[in-house]
Amino acid sequence: MAGRESGAAVVRCAGRIGVVASVAMNLAWLAMYIRRRYFTARRSDGGAEADVVEAGKGKPPVTPDSVVNLDHGDPTMYEEFWRATGDCATIVIPGWQTMSYFSDLSGVCWFVEPGFEHQVRRLHRLVGNAMVDGYHLLVGTGSTQLFQAALYALSPAEDGSPINVVSPAPYYSSYPSVTNFLNSALYRWGGDANTFDGDTCIELVCSPNNPDGGIRKAVIKSKSSKAIHDFAYYWPQYTPITEAASHDIMLFTVSKCTGHAGTRLGWALVKDKEVAQKMIKFIELNTIGVSKDSQLRAAKIIKAVCDGYELSSYGDASRLFHFARHKMAARWNRLRLAVEASGIFTLPDELPGHCSFSNDTIISNPPFAWLRYKKDDVEDLEGFLREQKIITRGGTRFGVDGKVVRVSMVDTDEAFDVFVNRLVSLK
Amino acid sequence: MAGRESGAAVVRCAGRIGVVASVAMNLAWLAMYIRRRYFTARRSDGGAEADVVEAGKGKPPVTPDSVVNLDHGDPTMYEEFWRATGDCATIVIPGWQTMSYFSDLSGVCWFVEPGFEHQVRRLHRLVGNAMVDGYHLLVGTGSTQLFQAALYALSPAEDGSPINVVSPAPYYSSYPSVTNFLNSALYRWGGDANTFDGDTCIELVCSPNNPDGGIRKAVIKSKSSKAIHDFAYYWPQYTPITEAASHDIMLFTVSKCTGHAGTRLGWALVKDKEVAQKMIKFIELNTIGVSKDSQLRAAKIIKAVCDGYELSSYGDASRLFHFARHKMAARWNRLRLAVEASGIFTLPDELPGHCSFSNDTIISNPPFAWLRYKKDDVEDLEGFLREQKIITRGGTRFGVDGKVVRVSMVDTDEAFDVFVNRLVSLK
Repeated sequence: MAGRESGAAVVRCAGRIGVVASVAMNLAWLAMYIRRRYFTARRSDGGAEADVVEAGKGKPPVTPDSVVNLDHGDPTMYEEFWRATGDCATIVIPGWQTMSYFSDLSGVCWFVEPGFEHQVRRLHRLVGNAMVDGYHLLVGTGSTQLFQAALYALSPAEDGSPINVVSPAPYYSSYPSVTNFLNSALYRWGGDANTFDGDTCIELVCSPNNPDGGIRKAVIKSKSSKAIHDFAYYWPQYTPITEAASHDIMLFTVSKCTGHAGTRLGWALVKDKEVAQKMIKFIELNTIGVSKDSQLRAAKIIKAVCDGYELSSYGDASRLFHFARHKMAARWNRLRLAVEASGIFTLPDELPGHCSFSNDTIISNPPFAWLRYKKDDVEDLEGFLREQKIITRGGTRFGVDGKVVRVSMVDTDEAFDVFVNRLVSLK
Repeated sequence: MAGRESGAAVVRCAGRIGVVASVAMNLAWLAMYIRRRYFTARRSDGGAEADVVEAGKGKPPVTPDSVVNLDHGDPTMYEEFWRATGDCATIVIPGWQTMSYFSDLSGVCWFVEPGFEHQVRRLHRLVGNAMVDGYHLLVGTGSTQLFQAALYALSPAEDGSPINVVSPAPYYSSYPSVTNFLNSALYRWGGDANTFDGDTCIELVCSPNNPDGGIRKAVIKSKSSKAIHDFAYYWPQYTPITEAASHDIMLFTVSKCTGHAGTRLGWALVKDKEVAQKMIKFIELNTIGVSKDSQLRAAKIIKAVCDGYELSSYGDASRLFHFARHKMAARWNRLRLAVEASGIFTLPDELPGHCSFSNDTIISNPPFAWLRYKKDDVEDLEGFLREQKIITRGGTRFGVDGKVVRVSMVDTDEAFDVFVNRLVSLK
């Protein structure tokens, strides 16, 4: 009887200790939780907020009375999408990672990150806008650097003289300046491809075209001319995907695909191995390769784009091209109404086409508006609009006349609103 | 009495509910903890491991019988330090951050991240190796790009002819190729500054020098010559800090300061605003600015370096320059012993000096060994060592003879061990 009583007493004692310990543990965990939740800045994945470095503010915000600068194609429209995706495109780079100059010595391009290459090939297969099998993939500090690398690889002319570099007007305003700024004896800007009467040249084919959104093909027929295809805008949000392009040199950029212009990353699909090796040599001499951090970030972002379509757990809010196309279509609709209301401007005609990516017929939504003045009393439209505190880029920069300007359609909602409202008021 | 009994019953009931709830909570939290700890990959700061992107493997590992490639100054020696620092140099970049082309439109350089600029100025004040007040800070995709930007800014010669670019031999092997690869009419490689007899030129002054570690000053005395000072190695781990340099154009690179070569980031301190603006123009045309991701990462890394010295909570293990100097000194000690044991090589003399950063007298520890062959039976030392499976860079690439080679001293421990052991065996 005494044993049973002392046994019961032990059990009761243990029970009490257990209850006290349990309550103490609960209080301790509650205190830790409160500290973590309210006193340590945390991101939604649980990582410490202190790891996120404060970045530059970029352009100043626009107000209804301020200057609105739509001269550059700064793709800030995309920030809304990436803010809503949570952490799927967040990248974490530990201090010890990617310190070496070298990425992968087994491939043709020693400075391309394999993870980036993998995601880019995946993206092209998803969208269907370019062939990837049989192509070498090169990376560059923006497609701007790759454009220069391609000029280097395809020059000089066979007789050793500087090879002419041409593009059909209106051409991208940077082509002449980037070609000529170092006064190279290897290549030289040769002007409008439509009026070029030489034999050998490098033709720059931008499609959809910057500035006017038109669908382009090479115009120079000579067998000794070589084409560089700039496909910065050949993505579903801007234009129907009509084929998987398969040209010798095709340039793309993260800036206009996902909106990450600050990452400074582009890539090239190149058929010929010798051309690829010479382009690699350019980038080696120019910048000893390309930032690994940018490549890893771009890989994460492109992975998020692909996952948004290929993994069923992601909803529509994770579909980049759908988001962007919807936004571009709404903006172009508003712009066309505003231009009609104003009565003194014209825009290029709408270009409908069947898109194999979305499997429907859509109107193209170029990233720039090629806005032309209808009347005769203004010769310098850029100057006229500047007086209205709208900054645009005049047609003479693109090899044509001054009565037309290029206006960015990919800036912030605020900037676009101010622009459209001001446009309507111009009669 | 009935009230007191029912009250007691309520208390007992509440007590039992409390105990059950408490135990249930404990079990639930235990389950969550186990899941987090063992089934979700987490980093040490609590963030999800999935955010860390797998990077390229870099150079293949070295074995006692493999080729050891010390041709490049790949700073993989530093990885050990950064692995040990935990997460203080980890950076997290959310998907929506730094998307714009623009960093800060209020300063001279629109693409420099203010956070990066702040940490760089802080670093120079800490180390005392360069003046920063009164200087414009520019950022580039490596100091290689800034070197080209400086050539662009300082050229052509006043008469419009290509300005000569010279450097005292032995000079950095990339100077001639980077200067000449685009066959620019603005500037042209002019060879050894010691034998240059022209009037106008741009002189490249690298100090400590690549390849031989010597302390350099400009040799061209002409008033119309302009100097670019390449201070890639002017850090305490390589050489005593003897003064805060204050030249017109000073170039630095993250690669050789912290070891982050893959980040592709350098900076320039420039006195003259017009020169700075022309350098900015070069980078604008070449790559439309510099990767924001690289800048933010470099800012975090440089902050960790400064914090390691300025915040008392960090111990010696967080002091980058102490770590690297200790490692370099040990390696140079071993190398000198190996060279002595071998008997067929020489190295530059030791250079002692007072270092204001560490406030002591130290021997310099150059990042490259300038290894010369003493005897007469070998004219091509690079070729001779290649047969011994040691890859180096021959003296003819640096404007001198073939009996001397440049060997990297900043590679991995394994690579250095194999090199030294093989060197001793050469008699």
